[in-house]
Amino acid sequence: MRKSVNADAPTKDEKIFAEAVRIFRAKGYHATSMQNIADAVGLQKGSLYHYIATKEELLFKIFERSTGALSKQLEEIIASKNSPAAKLRLAIAAHLTALCEQLDIYSVYLSERRALTGRYHTKVRAEGERHAVLLEKILRQGIDHKDFRPMDTKMVALAILGMCNWLYQWYAPQGRLAPNEIAGIFSDIVIDGLTRRRK
Amino acid sequence: MRKSVNADAPTKDEKIFAEAVRIFRAKGYHATSMQNIADAVGLQKGSLYHYIATKEELLFKIFERSTGALSKQLEEIIASKNSPAAKLRLAIAAHLTALCEQLDIYSVYLSERRALTGRYHTKVRAEGERHAVLLEKILRQGIDHKDFRPMDTKMVALAILGMCNWLYQWYAPQGRLAPNEIAGIFSDIVIDGLTRRRK
Repeated sequence: MRKSVNADAPTKDEKIFAEAVRIFRAKGYHATSMQNIADAVGLQKGSLYHYIATKEELLFKIFERSTGALSKQLEEIIASKNSPAAKLRLAIAAHLTALCEQLDIYSVYLSERRALTGRYHTKVRAEGERHAVLLEKILRQGIDHKDFRPMDTKMVALAILGMCNWLYQWYAPQGRLAPNEIAGIFSDIVIDGLTRRRK
Repeated sequence: MRKSVNADAPTKDEKIFAEAVRIFRAKGYHATSMQNIADAVGLQKGSLYHYIATKEELLFKIFERSTGALSKQLEEIIASKNSPAAKLRLAIAAHLTALCEQLDIYSVYLSERRALTGRYHTKVRAEGERHAVLLEKILRQGIDHKDFRPMDTKMVALAILGMCNWLYQWYAPQGRLAPNEIAGIFSDIVIDGLTRRRK
């Protein structure tokens, strides 16, 4: 068989990443060995270490992939000229779309992130808090504009995060509703639930 | 040392259960061996099998312990004479109180339940759906009474479940708010978010 050179073919790094996500999701992070990953990508275990130093580094890369783009999107939403309610709606839609489009990656991240230690743990924790802080910023803008009622912004941000993150437990791509439809239903609850009633 | 007979002392079953919860939470279910559990309770591995047939049976017992009492409570709430909004408030408080009071057990259940197979898997799946169905009943009672607006009850139930279950990821017993205070904040969002606006 002739080997073809294909610019679209996944690189070895990409293949290792994809197989790690798949195996972590199926077996769990702790039960997966570097040997399992080497076998799946057709490498000797020694050669795998040429690409990746530790299993934990792989899990951290999964975390980076899942959260990096979303944080950037949330910051753009906050900086936009939309009303606080519209911003919250956009933030929920961005979160759910990212999660549903990268369901395997988010599932591994959300269910295994507590396995990360040291500087990886610190970064993951900081990123989780950053997402909550970005939501709190929108909530506070809403309170300042008197669009939202006064509230415990920290607890409300955690409520929204939980509502959205929990999708990884039940979302099925072939299900009845698309991510943006689910986002609409969730936004209706939250925004109506926070809107200051005009007397 | 004289051995004392103490009616309040945990039975061997209880001790095995408690150690399994502790080790599953610390190491993850897949990475825990029956040997680890035997060592923790001071039994030979062979003797441990006298009490428990498989590691999976232990995980299933954890699930039973965490969900059984709560389901019963939810059914009593639904059957009560309260308004639908009051029932929803009670249901959210019961869920959060159960979760916070048995945080280790719920953490293992919520993060590891997908490891259960066969009839265990069927039972856990059915129980998860039952919780959603009980919430949907309250939501439909609210729509029928015209207290709540029309809604996709299935999606709203999943939103409420996610909001509440996610606590296992961030709740700290020494934190700023008690479970019933968090329940109040969550209930305010959901109930105001579902209440039909009187024109």
